[in-house]
This record gives sequence, C-alpha cells and structure tokens, in this order.
Amino acid sequence: MTLPHIRSLCLVLLLGIAPQVSHAQSVLSVADKIDIVFIALSAILVFFMQAGFALLESGMVRAKNTINVMMKNYVDLCVVMLVFWLFGYGLMWGDNPSGLYGTSKFLLNPDDPGELLFLTYQTMFAATAATIVSGALAERINFGSYILISVLMSAIIYPVFGSWAWAEGGWLKEAGFIDFAGATVVHSTGGWCAFAAAIILGPRLGRFANDGSKRPILGHNLTMVALAGFILWFGWYGFNLGSSGTVDESTPRVLFNTTMAGAAGGVAGVVTMWIGRQHILLTSTVVASIGGLVAVTAGAATMTPAFAAVTGAVGGVVSVVGINALDKMGVDDAVGAVPCHAFAGFWGTLAAGLFLEGNMFDPEIIIIQLAGAMSCMLWAFLGALMIFGLVNKIIALRVTSSTERRGLDFAEHYEIGYPEFQLAAVNPGKQGR
Amino acid sequence: MTLPHIRSLCLVLLLGIAPQVSHAQSVLSVADKIDIVFIALSAILVFFMQAGFALLESGMVRAKNTINVMMKNYVDLCVVMLVFWLFGYGLMWGDNPSGLYGTSKFLLNPDDPGELLFLTYQTMFAATAATIVSGALAERINFGSYILISVLMSAIIYPVFGSWAWAEGGWLKEAGFIDFAGATVVHSTGGWCAFAAAIILGPRLGRFANDGSKRPILGHNLTMVALAGFILWFGWYGFNLGSSGTVDESTPRVLFNTTMAGAAGGVAGVVTMWIGRQHILLTSTVVASIGGLVAVTAGAATMTPAFAAVTGAVGGVVSVVGINALDKMGVDDAVGAVPCHAFAGFWGTLAAGLFLEGNMFDPEIIIIQLAGAMSCMLWAFLGALMIFGLVNKIIALRVTSSTERRGLDFAEHYEIGYPEFQLAAVNPGKQGR
Amino acid sequence: MTLPHIRSLCLVLLLGIAPQVSHAQSVLSVADKIDIVFIALSAILVFFMQAGFALLESGMVRAKNTINVMMKNYVDLCVVMLVFWLFGYGLMWGDNPSGLYGTSKFLLNPDDPGELLFLTYQTMFAATAATIVSGALAERINFGSYILISVLMSAIIYPVFGSWAWAEGGWLKEAGFIDFAGATVVHSTGGWCAFAAAIILGPRLGRFANDGSKRPILGHNLTMVALAGFILWFGWYGFNLGSSGTVDESTPRVLFNTTMAGAAGGVAGVVTMWIGRQHILLTSTVVASIGGLVAVTAGAATMTPAFAAVTGAVGGVVSVVGINALDKMGVDDAVGAVPCHAFAGFWGTLAAGLFLEGNMFDPEIIIIQLAGAMSCMLWAFLGALMIFGLVNKIIALRVTSSTERRGLDFAEHYEIGYPEFQLAAVNPGKQGR
Repeated sequence: MTLPHIRSLCLVLLLGIAPQVSHAQSVLSVADKIDIVFIALSAILVFFMQAGFALLESGMVRAKNTINVMMKNYVDLCVVMLVFWLFGYGLMWGDNPSGLYGTSKFLLNPDDPGELLFLTYQTMFAATAATIVSGALAERINFGSYILISVLMSAIIYPVFGSWAWAEGGWLKEAGFIDFAGATVVHSTGGWCAFAAAIILGPRLGRFANDGSKRPILGHNLTMVALAGFILWFGWYGFNLGSSGTVDESTPRVLFNTTMAGAAGGVAGVVTMWIGRQHILLTSTVVASIGGLVAVTAGAATMTPAFAAVTGAVGGVVSVVGINALDKMGVDDAVGAVPCHAFAGFWGTLAAGLFLEGNMFDPEIIIIQLAGAMSCMLWAFLGALMIFGLVNKIIALRVTSSTERRGLDFAEHYEIGYPEFQLAAVNPGKQGR
Repeated sequence: MTLPHIRSLCLVLLLGIAPQVSHAQSVLSVADKIDIVFIALSAILVFFMQAGFALLESGMVRAKNTINVMMKNYVDLCVVMLVFWLFGYGLMWGDNPSGLYGTSKFLLNPDDPGELLFLTYQTMFAATAATIVSGALAERINFGSYILISVLMSAIIYPVFGSWAWAEGGWLKEAGFIDFAGATVVHSTGGWCAFAAAIILGPRLGRFANDGSKRPILGHNLTMVALAGFILWFGWYGFNLGSSGTVDESTPRVLFNTTMAGAAGGVAGVVTMWIGRQHILLTSTVVASIGGLVAVTAGAATMTPAFAAVTGAVGGVVSVVGINALDKMGVDDAVGAVPCHAFAGFWGTLAAGLFLEGNMFDPEIIIIQLAGAMSCMLWAFLGALMIFGLVNKIIALRVTSSTERRGLDFAEHYEIGYPEFQLAAVNPGKQGR
Repeated sequence: MTLPHIRSLCLVLLLGIAPQVSHAQSVLSVADKIDIVFIALSAILVFFMQAGFALLESGMVRAKNTINVMMKNYVDLCVVMLVFWLFGYGLMWGDNPSGLYGTSKFLLNPDDPGELLFLTYQTMFAATAATIVSGALAERINFGSYILISVLMSAIIYPVFGSWAWAEGGWLKEAGFIDFAGATVVHSTGGWCAFAAAIILGPRLGRFANDGSKRPILGHNLTMVALAGFILWFGWYGFNLGSSGTVDESTPRVLFNTTMAGAAGGVAGVVTMWIGRQHILLTSTVVASIGGLVAVTAGAATMTPAFAAVTGAVGGVVSVVGINALDKMGVDDAVGAVPCHAFAGFWGTLAAGLFLEGNMFDPEIIIIQLAGAMSCMLWAFLGALMIFGLVNKIIALRVTSSTERRGLDFAEHYEIGYPEFQLAAVNPGKQGR
C-alpha cells in the first residue's frame, strides 16, 4: 500500500463521514435561538458536574490514590464522550423498531443544528452516568480495567436502558414512564452499575474488620468534598433545566424545585443523623443533599414545589440510611454513590408518579414508575454483574494487595498528588471519628 | 389518631399548599423566554457564590476548623433557602401596606412562572446575605447557634430591610432610594449583622495580645482564598446582571461596570497597601477586589464605566483601610466581611447617588442614599445586636475555650479536614509575617 | 491650586469621558436580546478560565511559590482589564487605516450596548492571552516585573496582532486568514510570548542538571491541576461559543466540536505517552486535552465534527511531544504553556485551513493560514524577546538566587500558602517519578 493509497483511505474514512454535513440554509427562528442558548448553557453546566464528581471522590479517598481518582475521572470523560458519539448515541436515540435499542445515528455528523445540540447534551448525560460508577470503585481498581468498564457502560448498559425509557418507541416510554431528567435513566443506572462493580471488586483492604464491623477510611481532603457538593448542585441546574429541551412555563418551576429538593435533602440528612444519634458528618450531609437533587430529577417538571421539597427530603433520608445499610452489608462504596444515585433515584422515580400534578397517587402511574425503576435495577445491576464479572475474569479488575497498600498513584501512575506535604499513615479504625 | 387520619392530615398540609398551582395556560412570549433564560442563569451563578464564600472562609481559618466552616456554609444554605421560602419572601415581597414589612406570599407555590422565577432569584440573594455573616464568626461560634442566627437573619433582619428598599410601597423605595443589586440590601445588611455578631462573640483566643496589639491568625490554605475570589467574581455577574429583571440596554453596561469595578478594586487595594508600606497580601487583595464588586452593586446600571471604575477603586481602598481599622478596634473578622460588605457597601450606595448618570452630585439624591445606608446600618447592626445578644443569653453563641483550642472540627463535628496531613501548631504571633 | 480647582479637574477628567454616553433610545430587538444573553454569559465563562489558569500554575509549582502564582494571576487580571480598556482595545479594534494597528476607541465609554458588550468580551480575551505567559515564568520572576510584562503584552503585543487578524482592514483579515476564536490571536500570541520570556529568564535553579538532563520539579498539588483542567474546559465553551458574536446555526456545531476536540486531545495525549513508553502522567493528560481545545479554536465553526476530533487529537499529540521537546531544548515551562498554546495553536490554525468545510486542502487557504501562524510567531516571539529583554536590562526580571531558593512567597509577599502544613523539601531529581 503506497502513501497516496493511505492518504486516499484516510480521506475516505473521514469524508465518508463528512458528506452528511451540508450548509444549513435554514434561517433559525428566534425561538430556536433561545433554545440553542438554553440547551448549550445547560450542557456546559452538566459538563462541569465532572469537576464535582472528581473532587468528591478525590476528597473522600486517601492522598495516596488521588492521582488515580483524577485520572479515572479525566480520562473516562474523554473516552466516554468519544464512545458515546461513535456508538452509544445511536443505540439510545436511533430508530427503535423493537423498543429495545436504537439502530441508527452512529458516528453522527448531523446537518441539523438541533440534532447536533441534542447530541452534545446527551453526550454530557452519558458522561455523567459513567462517572458515577467511579467513586464506588475508588482505591482498588486497575486503571485500564476502569476505562474498559466505562466504555462498556457508556456503549451498552446506559444507552440501552435510555432507549427503553426516553427514545421514541422505547417500551417504557410507550408505557408512559415518567423520568424527566434521568433519576432512573442516568442516576440509577450509574448507581446500580456502581453497586454491581463494588460487589465484584470487594471492599478495600481494612475497610471492614474480620468480625464484619465497619472501619471507616477517612477522606484526605474534606474541603474538596464540600466544594464538590457546591459544584454538583451548580451543575445540576443545567442537568434539570435543559431536560425540557426548550424554554417553557415549566422552566422556572424546574429551577425552584431543584433548589428546594437539594436544600430539603441536606436538612433532612442532618436531621436523620441527629435523630439517629449519629455524628453529623459533613460528608454525609453533602451526600444527602445530592440525594435530594437526584430524587427530584424524575419529577422536577411535574410536581408543585411543596412536593419537590418532600421528594428531596426523603431523598436525603434515603441517602443517609443507605450509607449505613451498605456498611452493614459489607459493601464498600467510598463516596456514597449507591445510596444517593441508585436508592434516591429509585425513590425519586416513584415520587414522580406519587406526586404527579393533576393526577396524584394514581395506582396505574405508580405501577409504571415502579416497573421502570425495577427494570433499571435488573438491567443495570445484572448487566453490570455479568459484563464487569467477565472483564474481571479476563483481565482482573483489582490491583494487587501490595499496589493497594502502597497506593495506586505511585504504583500505577508514577506521580503523586502532594509530593511536598508530609503525610501520616491513617489506618482504618485507628483514627477516632 | 389513627393512621388514615395522619395520612389525611399530611395530605391536607401538602395539598393545602398545592391547590394554588394550576396549569399555566399562558403561552410565553419570546421576550418572556429570553428573560427566563437570563434570570435562571443569573440565579444559578448567584448560587455558585456560596462555594466562593465557603472557600474564602475555609482558606482563611486554621485547618482545625475547616469542617466547621464548611458545615456552616453548606447547612446555612439549605436551611436559609427553606426558611426564606416559608417566611422571609412574604415578609420582603408580600403586600406592604405599612411600608415596613410584607404581609402575604408566605410559603408560595405560585401559578405564574414569572413569580416562581423571581422567588428563586430572591432565594439566592437571601442565602448570600445570610452567609456573609459566617466569616466574621469563624472558629468560635457554636454550630447550632450559628444555624439559629442564620434562620433569624433570613427570616427577619434581611427581609424587613429588603421590604423597605425594594418592595412596592417600602418607605425607602418610595423615597427614591437607589440600590440596583443590593450593595445595601444584601451586602451591607450582611456586613452589619456580621459586625454585631463579631462584637458579641469577641475575638478568637490569642487574636489580640494583652496590650491590644494585633496577632494575626494565618489562614491554612490561601490557594483556596484566591480560588474563592475568582468564584465570587464569577458569580457576581449573575448577582448584578439578573438584578435588572430583564434583558435590556443596561445589561452590557452592568456587565462591563462590574468587570471594571472588580479590577479597579483589586488594583486600588494593592496600591493602598503599597503606599501604606504594608505587606501586599494576597488575602487583602482578594478582599479589596470583592470590595470593588460590592461597591458597584448599587449603581452598576446607572453609572458610566469611568465612574464604575472609580467606585470600585474606592471600594477597594475602603476594604483595605477597613481591615486595619477593625484590627485597631479589636474586632476580629476572620475574612474581612465587615470592611468589604458593610463599609464598601455603604460607600457604593453613596456612589450610586453621587455618580447617577444624568443627575450627578444632586444633594437631594445623595441625602436619600445616605438615609438608606444609615437606616440599614441602624436596623441591621442594632437588630442583630439585640437578636443575637438574646440568643447568646439563652443558648450561648460561643464554644468553650477548650473546644476552641482543640478546634471545632473534632470537638463538635467528629470529622477532621485533612486526617493524613501532618500539621504544625501555628500560634498567633509566633509566625512571622 | 485650590480645592475647588482640583474638584473641577477631577470632574473634567471623568466627565471628559462620560459625555460620550447618552441615553440609548433604541429599543432592542428580540434577536439583540438573545445575543446579549449569549455573549454576556460567554464572557462570564471566559472570565472563569482565569481560575483555571491560576490553579493549573499553582498546582504545578512548589508550595513555597503558591502565593506568588496566585498574586500574579489575580493582579494581572485586574491590571490587564484596566489597561486593555484604556489602550489595548483601541489599538486592536479602532479604525485601522494602515492595516497594522487601530487608532481610535481608547478609553471607550460607548453609547451602544452592542459595542459595550463586545468590549467586555474582548477584555476577557485580552486577559486570557496575558495570563498564558504567567505559567512559563513560574517560580523565578520578580512580581513587579511580571505585572509590567503583562501590561506591555496586553497594551501592545496582543492588540497589534489582533488588529492584523481580526479588525476590519487588518492585513491578515483582508487576506482571508481564518481564526475563529483565537487559536493564533489569543493562544499562540500568549504561547510565543511565554516562550520568549522563558528563554530570557532561563530555567529554574536545579531544573536541569549540569549535563543538561531533565530534573523534574514536582507540582505540589495535582488535585488542583485536574480541577484546573475541568475549569478551563468549562470556560472554553464560552471562549468558542461567543466568538461567533451571535447565536446562529453554527453554535451547536461549535459546542460539539469543542467537546470532541478536548476529548480527542486528552485521549491522544494518553495514547502518545503509552506508545512512547512514557509514564502516563495526569499533568500531561490535562495539558494534552487543553492542547486539543486550543487546536480546535481556530476552526470550530468551519469543520465537521470528525475533523474537529482529528484536529483535537493532533493538538493533544503536539502538546505531549512539545513538552518533551522543550525539555530537550533546556527551556523551562512549568505548566506546558508553550506546547499547548503556541504549538497546538499553530497546528490548529493550519487545521482550520486544511479541513475547511466545502473547500478542504485548498493550497491557497493553507498558505494564508501558514502566513498568519508564522507572522504571529515572528511578531509575538521577537516582539516579546525585545520588549521583555529591555525590561530585563532595566529592572531585572528574575529574583535573586537566595529568594528563589527560599521561595518567592515569604521573600516577596510575606505570606505563605499553607502555614500549618508540614512540608518536606522536594529537590529536583531527588524524588522518584
């Protein structure tokens, strides 16, 4: 094969893609322009949630693994964006004759500005779903395996469920399933995959004593955890607002409901810990407010503010109770991803049915909501168990014990987070809480 | 009381709220849609200022109190949002027959998207006013008492003054008081309350020597202080832009004036320190630029850029001079909240009158501006002295000396910010500056 | 001179500026309003990139210089904004009869909201160009000299090249040079100035061994480096989106192209390190994704997504290769500013010609692109060599060796970043990587 041949081939490969695009002659209407600004800025806010997820996980782990956490979050973002464009978007939003998965729109270079905008917004959502998994696997997963898991999740698990619930023709959508901005589609899917992966991986060394009692591993920088909470909340507005696809009368309601749910989640989390005579931890408070935000995500557009606050408050309670439940189950989830994304997402999906304005407590709707939330649990949890289990068999998800003890940063990445700062070994169970 | 009764009661409580909402049939005009996007994004930017306030305070205190700072900032946000919705908004923006306080719109579930949007925007403002107080009380206030103070401030002190200056029928508004985005209403109110609370609490142990000389307590992470400055400035654009309530010809001017005032405040602060042969501190530079931003907040829409820069520059000078003045008075304000919010806010309110485009240096206007700024000082400072003094009598605002010495994080919150990092005791006065 | 005289003089100075402003009577069209929201929010996002640049540099240097880094970034922002308003904007965007520089619009107080908006947006761009230089000079430049350099850059070097490439009548613009959002105008200009300044200053003490071999200086907080990457990417959306000046059909494409280029840059950087059997560093991964973003900046509006991804990928490769090349040349650039801004910007400018939709691989266009990128290199690199060299002769750019060893923070700023944290000396070459 000569050089000109290779050049031609490259051109064909790239131009085979390019010709789909032509000059859009359409003059945009003013309403279109408003929606472009609205969705573009929403997408940008959702993008910024990545910083929140990264800081949340980084702050909650030990300093010796902070590079690993950041690499996971930074590289999964880059990889997932490309993968979703290449494949996931088509599987989720392509023509869906079976109601089970999409079959077109792979590697899209659309002509239509609206489709391109939607593609971008959906790419940010896919990246969110994928990155949720990261926190539950912190401090023990092999970097390469993690990236592979992210690819499989954003190429298969997430878009297939998305096609059920959101795509025209999807069986859940056709049944009337309500999930406004993805409490189930994004957050529960991510949360259940995280649950499966945490089970397959097993807990971090020393996280549970031999008698099964909990020995907390302290996060190395809780200032970053609080900053992460603010950033996630900030980005969440883009997540929920943009999900209506257009600016309409529901937009202010979504804005206010999101605000109240986050606030109620945080307060309810604090009250839950106080009533339960637990220490009122900053980490759990942040997770509780995120739980409130997750919960309202399903019904933010179709609830009155009072019910949004109730939904958020219960989301906060569920998150705090969930953290304790996972501890009792011996599942090690460093950032509370499972309680606040899977459990609070489940609750929020029910709440969207229970508190549906104009048709509250309708058993038919509640059953559909339950079916959607359950099918997500089954698909994502079992699918992740199988896929991640398979990966585990082939290339081993977990690093060696010596790497884990030494820290993944130096052992796997040859960089350390804070080379000048003198660190003390904080052994689980040795530090008072 | 049987279970069905309780269920009914709950429904009544929630549905008693809900029926206010009905399907908004109105089709939004294009101009309405633009304003929704504009105000929603402005509100989201104002929300993010909370991260700035939290990092500013956290960075400026000792590591042993960083959890306490973050809990104060995170939980006050959640609580204040709920309280303002429940009560404060009505007191501020409800019908105001007396000109002294509002009497309707409590626990609002409005039908009208515009009102809901405004409610959200105002909620973010209330949260800003409340959180300003936090910094001045750092490292010595009891967590529970602080939350109570936040509730009282956002339920009474802030909304009452707000009703005077901004609500239809408020006596200051009727008199022609100009405070575009709240240099007085938000920042000075917060600043004067902070002043009162700092006086009631007294300085941190060791902050002043027995002979009254200043012994600086060094902030544990000044990188975060600089980040906080950038975040606050970033969020300030939402604070000032959204305050016009609509996109109009003044919007670009507000944007540029805010930019120039922040820049001029920072530069003027540096020059002030340089002329005064002080060390040119990063912390004071950040506070000076915030002082510039506070100052321009009153007149951002009604000044030419040149005067906005002058206003900001003087705001920066006032902040730096104010930091030194507080030191001499023996008042301990860890973050410079009083100088940059109360003092620079006072100046900015005058400046909005002095430099009012088309009617500069009009004595009548200046007197009204002075009256507004003075009445805020009296109301907020004296009101806070009384209310916080009362709280102090009943439940004690200040932690015990041993808790203060040990640090509030472990003693009150059972979490520490940086468990792995080895810390050295930095005693006030022992470290060179 | 009596007091009234001084008062009059001040008024004349300020009012001499003010009269340009009159009440804008024009009622804005709906399309104007949309553009105001769009450009204002884009400008605000570009502003926030400053936080990213500051954290990137801070995280990549030693703790003993973190205050210096933050002061440089915070104060240069304030100063440059004022200087660009005073002088730079006119030189760049004023009437340009010669095609070489602008001659009007100095210290503008425009009547027209559109011009004011554009002025703000351009001010943010000037601040970006100036701050790029900072990172390459880290840990050894005198604070005052740095501020002087920033002034000269934003008053002369940046606006003159900007007038060539972007202003009506500029010789490059008239020739058809394509640089959508400033891969050359902003990023390469900043990058080449950084290159010149790094050469004049020489490397940090101990950065290269006597035999010329590289001895890396480890950044003290790589969590902040990752956060910086997320913040820069987030702000980049404003940088690229707002550059069209209006919302149109290209807006979604710019959004998606920016996304794909950043992602492809990050992935390509990782792959490059992996193929080159280098350690896959977090720092280099972040720089590679920024390189991808820089590269797409020239052609984001005029490429199909597939080519944007290719452009970004090559930008990532160029950045990683460039880091190694600078090491071999013995040039010390602490943050990789030269590779990712100058080199990737050069590539991106070519790519905008190579992949111009509808007219790909047109030699005429490629030659113009090459001419533009080369003329930027010559102007900015040689101009900076001369100007900065002159400054160096007169007031010395570099601090003394003892100040450099001790750290600039205490020696120059009398503040330290982390007074409580116990630090270990990390000597170049002593730490394993």
